Amino acid sequence: MLALDASADPVLDFLLETPLVKDRSGTSLQRQLHQRIRGAILEGRLPSGARLPGSRALAASLKISRNSVTAVYELLGAEGYIAPSRQGTRVSLLERPAERPRTARHAAVPELARRAAQLRESTLAAGDTLPLRPGVPALARFPLSAWKRCLDRAVRDAGVAGLSYGNPQGELALREAIMRHLAVARGVRCEPEQIVITEGAQEALACCVRLVTNPGDTAWVEDPGYRGAKTAMACGDLDVVPMPVDENGLNIPETAWTAHTPRLIYTSPSHQYPTGAVLTAARRLDLIANAQRHGAWIVEDDYDSEYRHAGELVGAMQGLVPQAPVLYVGTFSKTLFPSLRLGFLVLPAALATPAAALLRETLRGGHRYEQLALAEFIESGQFSRHLGRMRRLYKRRQDALRAALKQYLDVPHVVAGGDSGMHLTIRLPADCSDERIAQAARAYDMAPMPLSRFALSARPENNGLVIGYGNTSESLFVPLIQRLAQLIRDEYPAGKTASSPTRKRRSA
Amino acid sequence: MLALDASADPVLDFLLETPLVKDRSGTSLQRQLHQRIRGAILEGRLPSGARLPGSRALAASLKISRNSVTAVYELLGAEGYIAPSRQGTRVSLLERPAERPRTARHAAVPELARRAAQLRESTLAAGDTLPLRPGVPALARFPLSAWKRCLDRAVRDAGVAGLSYGNPQGELALREAIMRHLAVARGVRCEPEQIVITEGAQEALACCVRLVTNPGDTAWVEDPGYRGAKTAMACGDLDVVPMPVDENGLNIPETAWTAHTPRLIYTSPSHQYPTGAVLTAARRLDLIANAQRHGAWIVEDDYDSEYRHAGELVGAMQGLVPQAPVLYVGTFSKTLFPSLRLGFLVLPAALATPAAALLRETLRGGHRYEQLALAEFIESGQFSRHLGRMRRLYKRRQDALRAALKQYLDVPHVVAGGDSGMHLTIRLPADCSDERIAQAARAYDMAPMPLSRFALSARPENNGLVIGYGNTSESLFVPLIQRLAQLIRDEYPAGKTASSPTRKRRSA
Repeated sequence: MLALDASADPVLDFLLETPLVKDRSGTSLQRQLHQRIRGAILEGRLPSGARLPGSRALAASLKISRNSVTAVYELLGAEGYIAPSRQGTRVSLLERPAERPRTARHAAVPELARRAAQLRESTLAAGDTLPLRPGVPALARFPLSAWKRCLDRAVRDAGVAGLSYGNPQGELALREAIMRHLAVARGVRCEPEQIVITEGAQEALACCVRLVTNPGDTAWVEDPGYRGAKTAMACGDLDVVPMPVDENGLNIPETAWTAHTPRLIYTSPSHQYPTGAVLTAARRLDLIANAQRHGAWIVEDDYDSEYRHAGELVGAMQGLVPQAPVLYVGTFSKTLFPSLRLGFLVLPAALATPAAALLRETLRGGHRYEQLALAEFIESGQFSRHLGRMRRLYKRRQDALRAALKQYLDVPHVVAGGDSGMHLTIRLPADCSDERIAQAARAYDMAPMPLSRFALSARPENNGLVIGYGNTSESLFVPLIQRLAQLIRDEYPAGKTASSPTRKRRSA
Repeated sequence: MLALDASADPVLDFLLETPLVKDRSGTSLQRQLHQRIRGAILEGRLPSGARLPGSRALAASLKISRNSVTAVYELLGAEGYIAPSRQGTRVSLLERPAERPRTARHAAVPELARRAAQLRESTLAAGDTLPLRPGVPALARFPLSAWKRCLDRAVRDAGVAGLSYGNPQGELALREAIMRHLAVARGVRCEPEQIVITEGAQEALACCVRLVTNPGDTAWVEDPGYRGAKTAMACGDLDVVPMPVDENGLNIPETAWTAHTPRLIYTSPSHQYPTGAVLTAARRLDLIANAQRHGAWIVEDDYDSEYRHAGELVGAMQGLVPQAPVLYVGTFSKTLFPSLRLGFLVLPAALATPAAALLRETLRGGHRYEQLALAEFIESGQFSRHLGRMRRLYKRRQDALRAALKQYLDVPHVVAGGDSGMHLTIRLPADCSDERIAQAARAYDMAPMPLSRFALSARPENNGLVIGYGNTSESLFVPLIQRLAQLIRDEYPAGKTASSPTRKRRSA
C-alpha cells in the first residue's frame, strides 16, 4: 500500500516520467507538480475520469511531502480539474470544448473598434525631450528639489491616511488652491465644488464628453487644432466637425449653427493651438450667446496662457459673462511638468450637482500625496514665482528662436503666434512637405511637429512647422535653425533651382 | 495736451469716477484699470466707437505710469475690445450679441448625457477608511517608509528626465517587472509590449472598451458583479447584459451566445466580486472556446487573487490556452495602496501591434517616478514579501470576522467567499433590507456594502452585506459584528417577534 509499483498505474507512471527538480527560476516542486498535472489534463493525456494516484503514494514516489501533494490536489479541485469519487480522486473535466481552433477568429487580423481604427497617430513616436518639440516645458529649470520637499511634507503630514482612495473629485485643499489661482490669474469664477482634478487635460476632455454628450452628437473642433480634443470626441462617438481658425481665432460661419448644430464646442481661445491666435472679445461674446441659444456647451482649453509674453494675461471666457455655458479645462503639464499628469476641469455651477454622481462613479481619486504637495506649492507662492521665472525664460527663448529664423530661414514663410506659450508656428509654401521636413529633422535629433498633423482638412495654409522653444536652450537655436533651414530648403522645389544648392554645398 | 480737463472727455470722466487704489487682495492698479475698462465695454457704458483718452493723459489723471496704461491698452487691443483708429484708440466691439439671456437654456435644468443620467452611485459617499469597507487593504500595515525610499531613489536616479511624458504604455522597467511577477504568481504569459500601465483598473476597463467595441455592441457583465465594469461599458454606450453567477462563478445559459451574442465579456474568474466564487476549469475552457467561436473578447479582472487563503493560487485564464482572447486587467490598489492609482492591462499578443496607435493617441504616460519606484519595489522582492505578510494578516482577519459572525449573527444567513481576497459576502433573508442595514451601520462608523448594490437584477439571493476585513483590526470584529448583528436583527421582520427584542433591550 505504501509504495506502489510504478508500472501498475499508468497515470503515476506518466507523472513520474520526468523528475521534479528545483530549478533556477525558483518554481517550487509543488507548483511544478500542479503545472504538470494541469497541463496533462488540458492536453488530454489525462482524460476525464482518469484516476489519480493516492496522495501518499504519489508523495513517496516523487520524494516530496504528502502535504505538498494534498495542497496540489486541493488546488486542482478548487480549479475544477479533479474531484473526489468513490474510487479515489478522478479527473473531472467532463465537458471539453468541442473544438479548440489553433487559429482562432481573433488570431489572424484582430478587429479593432471603429473608434480605434479611425485614429491615426498625432505624434512622431517618442522624442518628447528633443529640442524644438512643442508642448514640453523647460524640464531642467523645474525646481525639482523644492517640489520634492513639498511631496515629502505631504507624505509626512498625511501619513497612511493618504493611501486610501480619497475624494473622487480630488483633494479639497488642491481645489481651493486652484480656485484662488484661477481667480487672480485667469479671471475664472468658481467654487471648489465645481472643480474636478483629472489625469491631465486629456481626462478632463473625456469627462466633458461623458457628461454632456450622447453618441452621434455633433462636436466642433478647431482646424487646425489640438488633436487630443478630436481623439476624446471620437472616443465618445461624436460627429466631429472641423471649424476654421484665422488670425483672430475660431471663425465660425454663421450658417454652421443651423447646418451642424453642435452639442459641444472645443476651443483654445487664449492661445489657439497651434496657430497662437487670440480669440477676440466680440467673437467670445458671440460664441457664448450662440452656444446658449442653441443649447451647446463650450469646452475652453486654457493649456498655457499663464505664459503671456505680450501685455497682461488675456482673461478666460469662463469668467466673461455670468452663467457662461463653459467647461473650463486646465493642466499642470505645461506650468509644472508633464509626468505629473494633473489637470482639472471647472464645471459650470449649474452642472456641478447633477454631475456629482457620474463623477463619483467614474473617477477614483488617488494621487493624494501629489495633490497635497501641489496645493502647498501653489499656496506657498512657489508656483507663482516659478511661473514668473518661466515666463521670462520663455520670452528669451522665443526671441532667440525668432532671431535665428530671421537670420537663416530663407524659404518664404510666415511666423504666427508667440503672444504667449512655448511655441511658434511657421507656415511654409504648400509644395514643401512638412511631414518630410519633420522626418528629416528627427535624424538630427530635433522634433518640430508638422503643422498638417494638426489639420483635419488639407488646406495649403495648413503646411508648416510647429516649433517648440520651451525645452530648448537659447544657445541651441542658431545651430538647430541653421540645420532646419537647410532641410526646409531641400524640400522647397523653387529653392532647388535657385541660390540654395550653393549654400547646401557649402554647409555639407 | 499733457493734462486734459476732465469734464472735456466723458470717457475719461467715467474712468476717473472712482479712484484706483491698491487693495488688500493685491490686484495691481494696472489690472484694476483693465477690469474697469473691459467691464464698462461689456456693460455698454463704453459703446462701440467711443474714443478712449490718450495713454499719457489717462496716466497723468490716474497718477499711474504711462507704461501701465499702454500695457492695458495693448491687452485690450489683443483681446479685441479696442483698436487704434485715425482719431486715437476706440472701442471696437462692433458686434454685440443680439440677446444675452439672464436665464440661459442651461441655467434651469442642465441636460446631462443619457450615459451620465443612467448611472446611479455605487458607493455610499466617502468613508473609504471605515471598518468593514470592502476593497480597501490594510493601510496602516503598508510599508510607507520603504516605499518612500524607492520613490526617493527613482527621483534621484531619473532626475529631470523623469519630468517628461514618457512612454504612453508606461515605463519599460515596470512592464518588465509586472511581466515577471505575473508569470510566476498568476501564470500569465506575455511580453512587455502587451502590457499597458493604466490609471488603476478603471482606466484599463475603459481602454478595453475603446479598443474592441463599437457603440451598441453587447457586453456581458457578472450579476451580481463589480459595478465599475458596468460603468466603463455604459460610458462606451454598450448594451450591457447581466449574466448570472453561482457558486462556481459566471454561469452562462447556452442560449445566451446566440440570443445576445457578446462582443465583450467581463469576468473576475479567480475570485468573483463580490460573491467570492472561483470559476471552474471546465467553465473557463468553455468560455474561451465559445468566445473564440463567436468573436468575443474576455476581460479578465484579477483584482485580488494574490491573496489566496485556501490552497495555492488559482492561475489566470489568460495563460490557460494559447491565444486565449483575453484582455487581462490587474491593479496595485489592493496589493499596495488605492491612492497609487496604478493598474495595468495585458493585451492579447495579436492585439498589441494594432492597438499601439490608439494607445499612443489616448494615453499620455506620466507618473514616471511612481512607476520606476514600483518597478524597484517589485524587483527587489519587497513586493512579494509584502504580499506574503498581507496574506497572513488577511487570513487572521478573516478568521476573526468568521468567528464573530458565528457567535453574534443569529438572523438566518449564508457566508460566501473567503477562498481569497479581503471580503466575505453574507446573504440575508430577502425581507431584511440590506440598504437600510448599511445605512444604519454608517451611523456607527462601519461601512459594509449592501449586496443589492452589486446586482443588476433584483433577485432574493442578491440581498445581504459585503463585509471587508482588509482594513479592520482583529480586535474590532467582536464589537463591530455585535453591533451589526443587532442592526440586522432590527431589520428582520421574523426576529422582531422572536427572541431578539430581549437581546436588543439588553444591549441597548
